[in-house]
Amino acid sequence: MERPRHQGMAKNTYMRWRLPLICLLWEVAMIVLFGVFVRFSPEADAHWEEEKQEMNLTSDIENDFYFRYPSFQDVHVMIFVGFGFLMTFLKRYGFGAVGFNFLLAAFGIQWALLMQGWFHSFKSGKILIGVENLINADFCVGSVCIAFGAILGKTSPIQLLVMTLFQVTLFAVNEYILLNLLHVKDAGGSMTIHTFGAYFGLTVTRILYRSNLEQSKDKQGSVYHSDLFAMIGTLYLWMYWPSFNSAISEHGDAQHRAAINTYCSLAACVLSTMAFSSMLQKKGKLDMVHIQNATLAGGVAVGTSAEMMLTPYGSLIVGFICGIVSTVGYVYLTPFLESRLHIQDTCGIHNLHAMPGLIGGIVGAITAAAATEDEYGKEGFIKAFDFTGAYQTRTPSVQGGFQAAGIVVSLLIAFAGGALVGAVLKLPIWGDAAAENCFEDDVYWEV
Amino acid sequence: MERPRHQGMAKNTYMRWRLPLICLLWEVAMIVLFGVFVRFSPEADAHWEEEKQEMNLTSDIENDFYFRYPSFQDVHVMIFVGFGFLMTFLKRYGFGAVGFNFLLAAFGIQWALLMQGWFHSFKSGKILIGVENLINADFCVGSVCIAFGAILGKTSPIQLLVMTLFQVTLFAVNEYILLNLLHVKDAGGSMTIHTFGAYFGLTVTRILYRSNLEQSKDKQGSVYHSDLFAMIGTLYLWMYWPSFNSAISEHGDAQHRAAINTYCSLAACVLSTMAFSSMLQKKGKLDMVHIQNATLAGGVAVGTSAEMMLTPYGSLIVGFICGIVSTVGYVYLTPFLESRLHIQDTCGIHNLHAMPGLIGGIVGAITAAAATEDEYGKEGFIKAFDFTGAYQTRTPSVQGGFQAAGIVVSLLIAFAGGALVGAVLKLPIWGDAAAENCFEDDVYWEV
Amino acid sequence: MERPRHQGMAKNTYMRWRLPLICLLWEVAMIVLFGVFVRFSPEADAHWEEEKQEMNLTSDIENDFYFRYPSFQDVHVMIFVGFGFLMTFLKRYGFGAVGFNFLLAAFGIQWALLMQGWFHSFKSGKILIGVENLINADFCVGSVCIAFGAILGKTSPIQLLVMTLFQVTLFAVNEYILLNLLHVKDAGGSMTIHTFGAYFGLTVTRILYRSNLEQSKDKQGSVYHSDLFAMIGTLYLWMYWPSFNSAISEHGDAQHRAAINTYCSLAACVLSTMAFSSMLQKKGKLDMVHIQNATLAGGVAVGTSAEMMLTPYGSLIVGFICGIVSTVGYVYLTPFLESRLHIQDTCGIHNLHAMPGLIGGIVGAITAAAATEDEYGKEGFIKAFDFTGAYQTRTPSVQGGFQAAGIVVSLLIAFAGGALVGAVLKLPIWGDAAAENCFEDDVYWEV
Repeated sequence: MERPRHQGMAKNTYMRWRLPLICLLWEVAMIVLFGVFVRFSPEADAHWEEEKQEMNLTSDIENDFYFRYPSFQDVHVMIFVGFGFLMTFLKRYGFGAVGFNFLLAAFGIQWALLMQGWFHSFKSGKILIGVENLINADFCVGSVCIAFGAILGKTSPIQLLVMTLFQVTLFAVNEYILLNLLHVKDAGGSMTIHTFGAYFGLTVTRILYRSNLEQSKDKQGSVYHSDLFAMIGTLYLWMYWPSFNSAISEHGDAQHRAAINTYCSLAACVLSTMAFSSMLQKKGKLDMVHIQNATLAGGVAVGTSAEMMLTPYGSLIVGFICGIVSTVGYVYLTPFLESRLHIQDTCGIHNLHAMPGLIGGIVGAITAAAATEDEYGKEGFIKAFDFTGAYQTRTPSVQGGFQAAGIVVSLLIAFAGGALVGAVLKLPIWGDAAAENCFEDDVYWEV
Repeated sequence: MERPRHQGMAKNTYMRWRLPLICLLWEVAMIVLFGVFVRFSPEADAHWEEEKQEMNLTSDIENDFYFRYPSFQDVHVMIFVGFGFLMTFLKRYGFGAVGFNFLLAAFGIQWALLMQGWFHSFKSGKILIGVENLINADFCVGSVCIAFGAILGKTSPIQLLVMTLFQVTLFAVNEYILLNLLHVKDAGGSMTIHTFGAYFGLTVTRILYRSNLEQSKDKQGSVYHSDLFAMIGTLYLWMYWPSFNSAISEHGDAQHRAAINTYCSLAACVLSTMAFSSMLQKKGKLDMVHIQNATLAGGVAVGTSAEMMLTPYGSLIVGFICGIVSTVGYVYLTPFLESRLHIQDTCGIHNLHAMPGLIGGIVGAITAAAATEDEYGKEGFIKAFDFTGAYQTRTPSVQGGFQAAGIVVSLLIAFAGGALVGAVLKLPIWGDAAAENCFEDDVYWEV
Repeated sequence: MERPRHQGMAKNTYMRWRLPLICLLWEVAMIVLFGVFVRFSPEADAHWEEEKQEMNLTSDIENDFYFRYPSFQDVHVMIFVGFGFLMTFLKRYGFGAVGFNFLLAAFGIQWALLMQGWFHSFKSGKILIGVENLINADFCVGSVCIAFGAILGKTSPIQLLVMTLFQVTLFAVNEYILLNLLHVKDAGGSMTIHTFGAYFGLTVTRILYRSNLEQSKDKQGSVYHSDLFAMIGTLYLWMYWPSFNSAISEHGDAQHRAAINTYCSLAACVLSTMAFSSMLQKKGKLDMVHIQNATLAGGVAVGTSAEMMLTPYGSLIVGFICGIVSTVGYVYLTPFLESRLHIQDTCGIHNLHAMPGLIGGIVGAITAAAATEDEYGKEGFIKAFDFTGAYQTRTPSVQGGFQAAGIVVSLLIAFAGGALVGAVLKLPIWGDAAAENCFEDDVYWEV
């Protein structure tokens, strides 16, 4: 069923040498860099028996593996099945959605292990990795999956790999500034993952604007079964989001609390999404686009504050509002962004990640600023915000200010980085398809 | 592709104001009630550091989060993907199956946290929630998902929300009577979830009987790919059922044992289901309806006894029998119930939940009555049945009697509650579709 | 839509009495054998309270359940959803893929609990089972799922059950020889699961060679949505493979390390698979067959060495190479095996399991032979290879030799066993379909 017209069109989408070359070279680079830099953390190293004695641990269950591995696996599912299948809603781009997401994420986690390792786990010239590094690598790649949502169907796999390389790098820089320099809390990544990833992706897609994209308008929709495939992605994101927001929180109450807050926020978000999806349509019918996406906004929006004492009802409020904001965004903002600002956002990441991410950053800043020793307990207060060492004297309101600064920094790096990467991706050498062949698996896949 | 005939038919299915109104009002009510009542349990609260010292805990790993969170996530998947996709077998009702299940469960877990909280976690005027509450809320909603199976395709989303409100309330009352007043064991919910949920749903669908439902008979079947989507639901329910039945058991051996018993029961159930599915067809071919449903009966049927010393071979016997009972039910009982008793049971919950639930209650009563100190050990015996305090002198045979009473109470509340709720749902104000438009997503969804 | 021509053809595929009979008889046999032999392990028995005191355990969290249950559930998903859906790629064999996999695995785990129990968990006349036994039973059945891949679409459910009975038995014997007599390490089963399972299945399909299979060539392909269903299987196998390879490793660092090594190997494997999939096609397009299968070879190939100090970069190298080997196998070897050696390998298990399994065995032997006390630490070294008791004086290079012997033994038992079982399955009494009806659900399922 090969339609030969795709090759030799206005654009050359022939991948045979370019894609293999970039995949092989980059993977060899990973191997070399891992060989030079990456080793096991003490808890994953065979010397652990000695380590245990030194740390006076009486049981293997104290290994971080047992605190975090179940959450890691949930996050892993979110990145590969969650994002992958969420994007299969397009009628003829299921292979690209799930396959390219697989490719970029598999590369991205390796590069993220290195980049984040240099910043956070570098000891005596080696990066020491354990389960927490795996989670953080998945998180970092999550921001790339988000950006992928904006350009879904319009880019070649090479462009996606190039974007991944740059975005992971920028993510790590931004994360370092926020977590280490500003000493900001952002366990579920409202700022570092969602705000950064979404505005980065939106800037990229703005730069890559195609004026003639309506030529493939017929392929931008869904069919019945593609919408059901997408719901697999939605539900796994929704169900496992409590694991996402709690995965790297402090052991004990913080992980526990982050899961509960996220669960509450997401539950409320479903109700307000359904309400507005029906309300904003003349016929009053529900729109699968909203159910697939806006129901998740509640998870994004408590990404910073879930591990804080946001409280269950605070979480309900945040989720409730974000379901509305996100659904309204799909109905009114997405068309506006496309027609007026020339931002072609295939999956509507502006509604699912950008706005809820911003809200999440703000909610985090307010929750931090409002924290009191009474609410957290004396020790809990210090532990929750890590007010130790150089930060011993930081007050909640100052922390709130730094949290707000974290939003601004994330936005700036997203815009600047997105513009830079967009410009790189605009070079006519990466093999992206002509407008009429967008959203079509046939271009890069044997169908 | 909108077919306008659906609106302004004999029945008005226009949702635009009714659905948003009920969603928004109820969610605001949740927020207010959570604001007044719901706080974190000590293990999820930032004061945990102090709590740990008081409780003499030396490690964060003792937080209940680490005992139960993996099981919680499995249960969560069962409710949203398991039940949601199991019901996508209808050729034109996939959106409704997975989408309305999503809606009612997201509302139901919030209301369940409150209802169950008032009964079980109410301290000094506050409901204190932790991971066990999240599991119990999912359990409670599970009973609503079961009832949804009976009326699948025939009700409006508003009716489902109304049913959820009532059913969660009744569930909590029934659960309180069983667990607290009768001091009955039912960790996997053979009685509280399955028997109650199924007979409640069957009563509701009996009251909502539609004599002209054959008008949509062509849409009541499946197509090839809808059956594969349904198998996703089946397999996740089947695989995670050991987590379901062990999720709220006592720490240690009880959780361990409940998982093993359930695993065994389910394995045997697959064999007897396959056998009878083939045997009861003239052509000897397997029927996907049986494979999708009857294979799960083994999980239902050890819901009460899995945490007891049922033993692996006991579990095999129970699963074996229930696969037969359930498959025979699909072949002979479902048509009989519809034609003679006017019970239109879309998913056949009578075969998957009602009969196996009853069997599960009976098996639980027998297993409890047959328990001996020798079999459980002195301490294990007391721990398994919580024969402490006021129940210090209760004997196994008395416990068996109370277990049996639990079945009767569950049935009575299910019948009475189902009749009441059925009557409420019969009011002509909820926007359900005409018979000819049943089992059709087009009525409530943009397709 | 029943096409009656299938019955009464050259081959009699009528299942009505044969399939029920075998299912029921075998399940009754399981019940009897479980009744005689199977009891709970101390950690799942109600006497655990006393056990805890004897073992001086201060917390229920020390129960093996909490070390292994999350990994068990991931493995469980791999067997039932992973393998089941991976094989749904055929356009008209989705029911058979997921349904027969369900059937054989549900029977297989019971028989495996017995067979492996007699060899490894037999105490005072009883098999004592706990969560580790459940994992091992799933592992054993994994080897049957692999063999199923070679004969997919060409055998009756009865043949599959007969094969399962024999293969589980042979698996247990082979495993006993390797683990107990040769004292070989193989936690993720490169040898016991993949090498054995794949060469066993390839031998069976060789014996069952059908010269006229091109009569059903039109049904051997995929359609768009069947490829997406298969990707569900692929991704769950890929994501959970770190759990698979670490599930039965020693508590602590070994589990932790095995997960990290597997994660790294799989990530690299995706890149090299994508590269070669594109490179080996004239049109340079990616082939879903490769993405669905070869991306997983990295998990197979670190099955023996993942728990050793393979190191992250070592894992990258192994995964990188195996992605290439596996993809090249799909393009060149599979057609060669079929045309020259008459090995009809439906899913290409030679590329996904056989070659990577062999590589995995070899990598394990080398890694073991290269181990030093310096690298593992004094205690870690002894713990990693269990150099205690009778093996106190075994050196790494001797261990490497025994590891290599393990590969040879696995191959021999696979070939001999496969030939035997293939001969049994060739008997004309099992109801397999004529060549023209292969790869067609209609034969055994109500469609």
